[in-house]
Amino acid sequence: MSSKRNVYLSMKPLAEARALFLDHFDFSHRLAAEEVSVAEAVGRILAEPVHARLSAPSYHGAAMDGIAVRAADTYGASDLEPVEFTLGKSAVHVNTGEPMPEGMNAVIMIEQVQALSDETVRIEAPAFPWQHVRRVGEDIVATEMLFPRHHRVGPYCTGALLAAGVHRVAVKRRPRVLIIPTGGEMVQASDLDESDLAPGRIIESNSTVLGALVEQMGGVFVRHEGLRDDAETIAAVIGEASGNHDLVLVIGGSSAGARDFTKMAIERAGGEVLVHGVTIMPGKPTLLAAVRDHPVVGIPGYPVSAIIAFEELVAPALELMQGVRGEARPTVLAAPTRKIASKLGMEEFVRVRLGKVGERLVANPLPRGAGTVTSITRADGIVRVPADLEGLHPDREVAVELLRPLAEIERNIVVVGSHDLCLDVLADLLKEEQTGLSLSSSHVGSLAGIMAIRNGLCHLAGSHLLDPDDGSYNTTDVARYLADVPVRLINLVTREQGLMIVKGNPGAIGGFEDLTRDGVTFINRQGGSGTRVLLDYELAKRGIPAGDISGYETEEFTHMAVAVAVMSGAADAGLGIRSAARALDLDFLPVTSERYDLIIPEEFVDTPAM
Amino acid sequence: MSSKRNVYLSMKPLAEARALFLDHFDFSHRLAAEEVSVAEAVGRILAEPVHARLSAPSYHGAAMDGIAVRAADTYGASDLEPVEFTLGKSAVHVNTGEPMPEGMNAVIMIEQVQALSDETVRIEAPAFPWQHVRRVGEDIVATEMLFPRHHRVGPYCTGALLAAGVHRVAVKRRPRVLIIPTGGEMVQASDLDESDLAPGRIIESNSTVLGALVEQMGGVFVRHEGLRDDAETIAAVIGEASGNHDLVLVIGGSSAGARDFTKMAIERAGGEVLVHGVTIMPGKPTLLAAVRDHPVVGIPGYPVSAIIAFEELVAPALELMQGVRGEARPTVLAAPTRKIASKLGMEEFVRVRLGKVGERLVANPLPRGAGTVTSITRADGIVRVPADLEGLHPDREVAVELLRPLAEIERNIVVVGSHDLCLDVLADLLKEEQTGLSLSSSHVGSLAGIMAIRNGLCHLAGSHLLDPDDGSYNTTDVARYLADVPVRLINLVTREQGLMIVKGNPGAIGGFEDLTRDGVTFINRQGGSGTRVLLDYELAKRGIPAGDISGYETEEFTHMAVAVAVMSGAADAGLGIRSAARALDLDFLPVTSERYDLIIPEEFVDTPAM
Repeated sequence: MSSKRNVYLSMKPLAEARALFLDHFDFSHRLAAEEVSVAEAVGRILAEPVHARLSAPSYHGAAMDGIAVRAADTYGASDLEPVEFTLGKSAVHVNTGEPMPEGMNAVIMIEQVQALSDETVRIEAPAFPWQHVRRVGEDIVATEMLFPRHHRVGPYCTGALLAAGVHRVAVKRRPRVLIIPTGGEMVQASDLDESDLAPGRIIESNSTVLGALVEQMGGVFVRHEGLRDDAETIAAVIGEASGNHDLVLVIGGSSAGARDFTKMAIERAGGEVLVHGVTIMPGKPTLLAAVRDHPVVGIPGYPVSAIIAFEELVAPALELMQGVRGEARPTVLAAPTRKIASKLGMEEFVRVRLGKVGERLVANPLPRGAGTVTSITRADGIVRVPADLEGLHPDREVAVELLRPLAEIERNIVVVGSHDLCLDVLADLLKEEQTGLSLSSSHVGSLAGIMAIRNGLCHLAGSHLLDPDDGSYNTTDVARYLADVPVRLINLVTREQGLMIVKGNPGAIGGFEDLTRDGVTFINRQGGSGTRVLLDYELAKRGIPAGDISGYETEEFTHMAVAVAVMSGAADAGLGIRSAARALDLDFLPVTSERYDLIIPEEFVDTPAM
Repeated sequence: MSSKRNVYLSMKPLAEARALFLDHFDFSHRLAAEEVSVAEAVGRILAEPVHARLSAPSYHGAAMDGIAVRAADTYGASDLEPVEFTLGKSAVHVNTGEPMPEGMNAVIMIEQVQALSDETVRIEAPAFPWQHVRRVGEDIVATEMLFPRHHRVGPYCTGALLAAGVHRVAVKRRPRVLIIPTGGEMVQASDLDESDLAPGRIIESNSTVLGALVEQMGGVFVRHEGLRDDAETIAAVIGEASGNHDLVLVIGGSSAGARDFTKMAIERAGGEVLVHGVTIMPGKPTLLAAVRDHPVVGIPGYPVSAIIAFEELVAPALELMQGVRGEARPTVLAAPTRKIASKLGMEEFVRVRLGKVGERLVANPLPRGAGTVTSITRADGIVRVPADLEGLHPDREVAVELLRPLAEIERNIVVVGSHDLCLDVLADLLKEEQTGLSLSSSHVGSLAGIMAIRNGLCHLAGSHLLDPDDGSYNTTDVARYLADVPVRLINLVTREQGLMIVKGNPGAIGGFEDLTRDGVTFINRQGGSGTRVLLDYELAKRGIPAGDISGYETEEFTHMAVAVAVMSGAADAGLGIRSAARALDLDFLPVTSERYDLIIPEEFVDTPAM
């Protein structure tokens, strides 16, 4: 069966793959110039240096309201020996911006002019030559270079161009990118309407993401209709299209599996594969090829892989074409909240959330899967773990490439611990009120939240830890683990915990006792979560051995994940909060009311953010 | 005559003016929501929180190519006790992404499966539950909040939205801005064609600059045709338009002069002036008003004033409307290259060029005039001088708000001194070669360049200082002023200096002797410039007293400025280089050939930039 699998003939490290690709094509001379109006040029790249056609100002003009005179006529004027001028002859009224009358070279402000009659005025101080006059070319001299080639035209630049009499400029043509999604399982989100997705069908989102990234980089894109997994069809489209586009991106099928046809398609189209496989994670199954001297890139289908492959390999080509140098993302140093393991030989892109807790910037690693698109939409930054490292340790700060401005990140309120839907409402309220603050929450369970406070890794923690001995919530564990950290407990909500059960309760589950029945599968929460503590307490109270419950050892990390497991049929029941059951329309057997508190270190209680 | 002038009734400090304006209108509730596709939503602001419609993945799917099994069936498998499966019954072939067959909860990678026959396979290790399975909701759980309101949709976000089955979202409508240029002297650059600008006519550029800034902030704009200076007409347009736009900007006429009609027009339109005059420079003549509860802003006509007024007063309103908080520009500390004087009581926005010279970031102030648009297009940053300071001293670092990324600024090569057109060619070549480097040059004359090197304010200086005693160039002054700074002299060009004379030489100027004739006006260069040294040398050689030359005391700072003075008729002749005369089509009487060198401190000679 292993004969069904192709293999990567030779994987390349990122830098080598990039160099092979960029050097193979003459990207810097690919784009011709086109002429556009100055207004249309904003955001575009100049194809040639631009020189001023006119000087600005184009004439000597009054810079003040007043009278224009010959400076020489004013010499010696004083309050003892004022000098008089005849309007229309030795002096002329001028308003700001008006041209200086022939022969006049100074303006005296109207406030310093005494009117003696309709025809005669008097001054009591001399003027120096060119006083209050904007002279020709003071700003721009005709023929001077305004901007060098490859300059990006910004809003301000249009002012200089127009003032210099330049109203059309030559800019680099926009790079044209063809995006071809492949895969028979793909569905358009817009085709879903109200019906749900059949199992095995996947919503095609990569073409939209990559298209937006192309536009963000100054390119234009055409989305080809999705192609089925068929080398012949893909080859035909690539062969026809590559000449009309500056880049062709084929999404999906770029790996070396039995159903990956991009490599075969490129070869059938007469192309040459330059690189197949890059030692990066996510993004390994990237393919770089030349089809009749046109660049074609096989983009992996997992969303995070697609983004990394684009940014690391396609974006530099788009920059080179346009003559701009992409600025590396700014980096900061941050302390990882836990060890980041990594595979030797692979350069790994770990997405992290950041927060400034006290004086320290902490980096909380997000899920690693290449399929987890929220790991990049929720990320504040990316940590690159080099190929020659097996991981990063929490005791050493790491460089984080920022995806958002640092000032914005520093206004993240970092919440770690148990999740309640109230936190989402809070996050939305913070945005509605335009506070500039964001809520950055990680749902790892109550006890892990308390530990994060102890270790200085968060601003606050959500917790609902029952003390079985006295029925109190949170106080016992706070006293046990946070003896050295003064904190305040703020009750956010009282909520109902209960058994979430498949809609209609087909298994007729009436309580914890029924969980031990044959054919009933339970789905559990992880150790240290408030819900797990509650379960174990309820089981102990009833004398039910955990080992009798099928699925006790299967752990989920959030209420919603438990609810989904029940909804999807993976389990028959799980313990969780009523709002999670309500959200997914599950049946709910109430067990108890519990207190959900926010634990806030005293040092943060009085900060403006709180 | 002073009765012709209106006055600012009460000028306000910036913060107060801004608060008066922002608080007067309910900006945050001004924009309704509109529904757009996810692709169209990129760059837009969510009007509501968005929740997932579907889970992602929406089904339990294989995360590897291999066989799907029940994990429980594999327990105990080892190389000594392998377990066999029957394909199609206890095991099913799956490819990555395919749904898990009913009842199966683990995938074994194809590499770890031995094929015994077409029907039977064998494994030698157990699988744990959900091994190599992407479970429902692993990425996104249906109903969960994906993004809070007021979140700006980026390219990545489209991936999460589509994966969650969301293909249309409610975003804030784009703010609509009407831009009305006023002033009878205004001309459209596109109307110029090949004809030049008549004296007194000004190219209207502000509406293009402000329109581009509006678009950059997510708004749309309509440019009204230019209006003459007539309060009645302006009032009619404002009155009709203000209800259909979220903001109206009236450019020009916002000051308190005799021909400034914006205030009058707003009052005739039934509006209320909230603020007239803001204590900022540039930008003082800004006017903030409400016309029937609609915001109208009078924008000053000078280009830099218009930009500052927009960014400080209009931009915050656009942000508030859209529910986003504008990030303050990042700031750095830099040492001013000279004293920055400033008017007490006015908050001044000084544009500066920045460069990293050695370990120090230096800030070189650009011209201060509000009319000098190149002072902002050439700027790397802005220094705000508070109203209660009279200026900033070079011995104290100042905070500079960055207009470009710091990494880019740190690649500026700072050139101070005499100018040669070769420097522009060099600047363009640096961009053509995509070196990432920029040339940042200040033209202050040769000697000032040498002083800048002595004070550590530049990377290199252009110089052509003649030693009249031995006819050598630069070496004498370098020895005199740079005794402590090891430098290298690199000859960039040998060029011709001569008298630039009005085309056709109507004054029949044949040499320096003719400069003393009645009716002949000379235009000089500033002391310390190489050209001034040359002039004084040539005059001395001929025994011509400087005092006999009319215009000897009128100084310009560049060759091109001298050429412009001659071209515009302000002077009959000036001394300068042939290329300047050629650029403006002047006659040229050669005087001498001179050496133009680059002076480079040894410490920079071997840097990659050089």
